[in-house]
Amino acid sequence: MSPQADAITVLIKRLSKLPGMGARSARRVALHLLSDRDKNLAPLQAALQAACDEVVTCANCGMLDTQDPCKICADDRRDPAKICVVQGVGDVWAMERTGFYNGLYHILGGVLSALDGIGPDRLAIDSLTARIAGNDPVREVILALGATVDGQATSHYLADHIRKIDKTVTLSRLAYGVPIGGEVEYLDDSTLATAMKSRAAF
Amino acid sequence: MSPQADAITVLIKRLSKLPGMGARSARRVALHLLSDRDKNLAPLQAALQAACDEVVTCANCGMLDTQDPCKICADDRRDPAKICVVQGVGDVWAMERTGFYNGLYHILGGVLSALDGIGPDRLAIDSLTARIAGNDPVREVILALGATVDGQATSHYLADHIRKIDKTVTLSRLAYGVPIGGEVEYLDDSTLATAMKSRAAF
Repeated sequence: MSPQADAITVLIKRLSKLPGMGARSARRVALHLLSDRDKNLAPLQAALQAACDEVVTCANCGMLDTQDPCKICADDRRDPAKICVVQGVGDVWAMERTGFYNGLYHILGGVLSALDGIGPDRLAIDSLTARIAGNDPVREVILALGATVDGQATSHYLADHIRKIDKTVTLSRLAYGVPIGGEVEYLDDSTLATAMKSRAAF
Repeated sequence: MSPQADAITVLIKRLSKLPGMGARSARRVALHLLSDRDKNLAPLQAALQAACDEVVTCANCGMLDTQDPCKICADDRRDPAKICVVQGVGDVWAMERTGFYNGLYHILGGVLSALDGIGPDRLAIDSLTARIAGNDPVREVILALGATVDGQATSHYLADHIRKIDKTVTLSRLAYGVPIGGEVEYLDDSTLATAMKSRAAF
């Protein structure tokens, strides 16, 4: 006999499949939800339902939003001459939190990965091509992919691909170097070597 | 302008209120849920709905279950002469995972706490009294509360209270000592002193 009732077991199992959640934390969350259904469970359910009903993917950039085109693509104060290519929605959120960038985005939906069998056809490259080759006045494409092996390989692939479509567009990438707040002593070798190689005038 | 859409912001805010969840992990979970709504979001919603509809509190012991009396109280293979008093539902789950105990439970719903203003009237003590004084053949009450200041104060309070109702019932508590797998060197002073004081014949 299982000590947990069926509906509770199913809930715990579902919660434990969320990223960063294990069996123990899933049990804790399930108890929290069940301890006060009106205050804890019902609002979460309502939020999930609203997200399910209202959230759509922007046909232009691939962003998740309650409108299509998304608020960023629809905002005429943003510079349509810049497209920042990112891996996912979370990257756009991170970039927007900095408040620094005022161009548009393009969400690839991943990076090329030989190991995971992710080729160019699995990424939103055709729609990026269409935006660059189309009527949009794109002057700069910023490749803001991770500084990982796959991220860098994808950046190189995209750079080659974009140059074939439009030789005049400016290609850039994020700077690599010492993260702000980072101590030189504790940096890994690759970061330190990169930061030294890309040193800037003071 | 917030980069997140309203329904997404609400979902993230809701998720970040779950125990053990911060803003960062809530964003990660929201993205996971929205990335594949059929596979991730819908089943969680269904599980929450089922839990909301089906889970009830056992009127006898306070356990959460899909039936009342709960599966433990309704199981006639369990010994009704023993009641194990615990703080919450999670304690019953933990105890049941050991598979060692075959009696019934009583969920207090907390422990006495002067700091948090939790007095005896806030705990399920009247229903425990009724079970002991009633027709149930209770012979032993096991006080399985935490070895914390509040837990031990509550155990003492309950012991006094139960003795007033029924002088013949056996009162016991969980053993205190070295946790299995624990190294003597790393034990805190109180645990080590308790383990030494309560040393057992070898």
